[in-house]
Amino acid sequence: MHQKSLRDALHDFVAERDWQQFHTPENLAKSISIEAGELLECFQWGDADLASAKYELADVLTYCMLLADRLGLDPDTIIAEKLTQTKEKYPVEKARGRSDKYDRL
Amino acid sequence: MHQKSLRDALHDFVAERDWQQFHTPENLAKSISIEAGELLECFQWGDADLASAKYELADVLTYCMLLADRLGLDPDTIIAEKLTQTKEKYPVEKARGRSDKYDRL
Amino acid sequence: MHQKSLRDALHDFVAERDWQQFHTPENLAKSISIEAGELLECFQWGDADLASAKYELADVLTYCMLLADRLGLDPDTIIAEKLTQTKEKYPVEKARGRSDKYDRL
Amino acid sequence: MHQKSLRDALHDFVAERDWQQFHTPENLAKSISIEAGELLECFQWGDADLASAKYELADVLTYCMLLADRLGLDPDTIIAEKLTQTKEKYPVEKARGRSDKYDRL
Repeated sequence: MHQKSLRDALHDFVAERDWQQFHTPENLAKSISIEAGELLECFQWGDADLASAKYELADVLTYCMLLADRLGLDPDTIIAEKLTQTKEKYPVEKARGRSDKYDRL
Repeated sequence: MHQKSLRDALHDFVAERDWQQFHTPENLAKSISIEAGELLECFQWGDADLASAKYELADVLTYCMLLADRLGLDPDTIIAEKLTQTKEKYPVEKARGRSDKYDRL
Repeated sequence: MHQKSLRDALHDFVAERDWQQFHTPENLAKSISIEAGELLECFQWGDADLASAKYELADVLTYCMLLADRLGLDPDTIIAEKLTQTKEKYPVEKARGRSDKYDRL
Repeated sequence: MHQKSLRDALHDFVAERDWQQFHTPENLAKSISIEAGELLECFQWGDADLASAKYELADVLTYCMLLADRLGLDPDTIIAEKLTQTKEKYPVEKARGRSDKYDRL
């Protein structure tokens, strides 16, 4: 599925339910945190519940796409831009095999 | 940018730093929650910081794509599948203009 | 330190900075999530950072106390009330040694 | 209820269910984030659900107390210690009436 028609499908889903009124950037940011917590719950104790994780990850991604749209941003573009910055913060020769934060390299 | 080459770019970024070892599904789920909190911080008090929100949203999306990849899932596919379920939970005639959860409709 | 004078100390800290205006229940709930993410970051990858965890836990607790106060609730009382409910959901004979959620017992 | 006997009540609740095995510092930190998300859900859209917020706040507080206990920390003490630091970061004359982070004062 092309990403553009998924964006249209989400847009139509929201519009036909007259839900844009609730989708302020703040409410969408809260929703991303809420769904991230539900995703984390799949890994709360011992055995991971990967079946549920799929649905919860879909919820996080859905709200991320709605927020990107609301802020006039393209998801792929902002991921790629951030990746460029992250590559500089974590040069291969310093960061290889290490999980330390960049200010500890 | 095609989504497939973005996935390759992320994959290469992780591989050349030998970071796959840290990217267990659980660690990625934790990372999504952590970045979701940083995104929410852009809306913590009065004026929203939309400039920072762009970068934090990119971080959430990045970890979501890494988790999808780790679980062998395609982001667009799981979003579309979940959307089908959500349409049934929130039929237009009942849900229109309302923010109630589905069990309250 | 008696809990009541800690509550007074927090109250004074907020009042002398004229910060009550920002402490709506919603902003405090967002703050709890934000600090919870910073606490979780101490456990993001390999070695836990327990030194930082102490300070981040203090931040989560501080916002919890501020929210309790804002909602006219006593922390110890609501914890004890919830514990009574949780004991019923998780009777010893069914829950012993198991991490399953109550609807799976 | 005195805080010490609440700590004992929580300790006994965990011990009689043989749940200490699940209460690693990491699992408790994840649980705090998960419950913080459920608390935030009470404020997700329009009207705040303050009745549910009471129970969700109790859950966040409960896991905070369990983590404090697991790390050998006293909640009141660490809150008071952090408050001393925060007073220095946010002196009254600079911070009064402002929600800016300390590095913006």
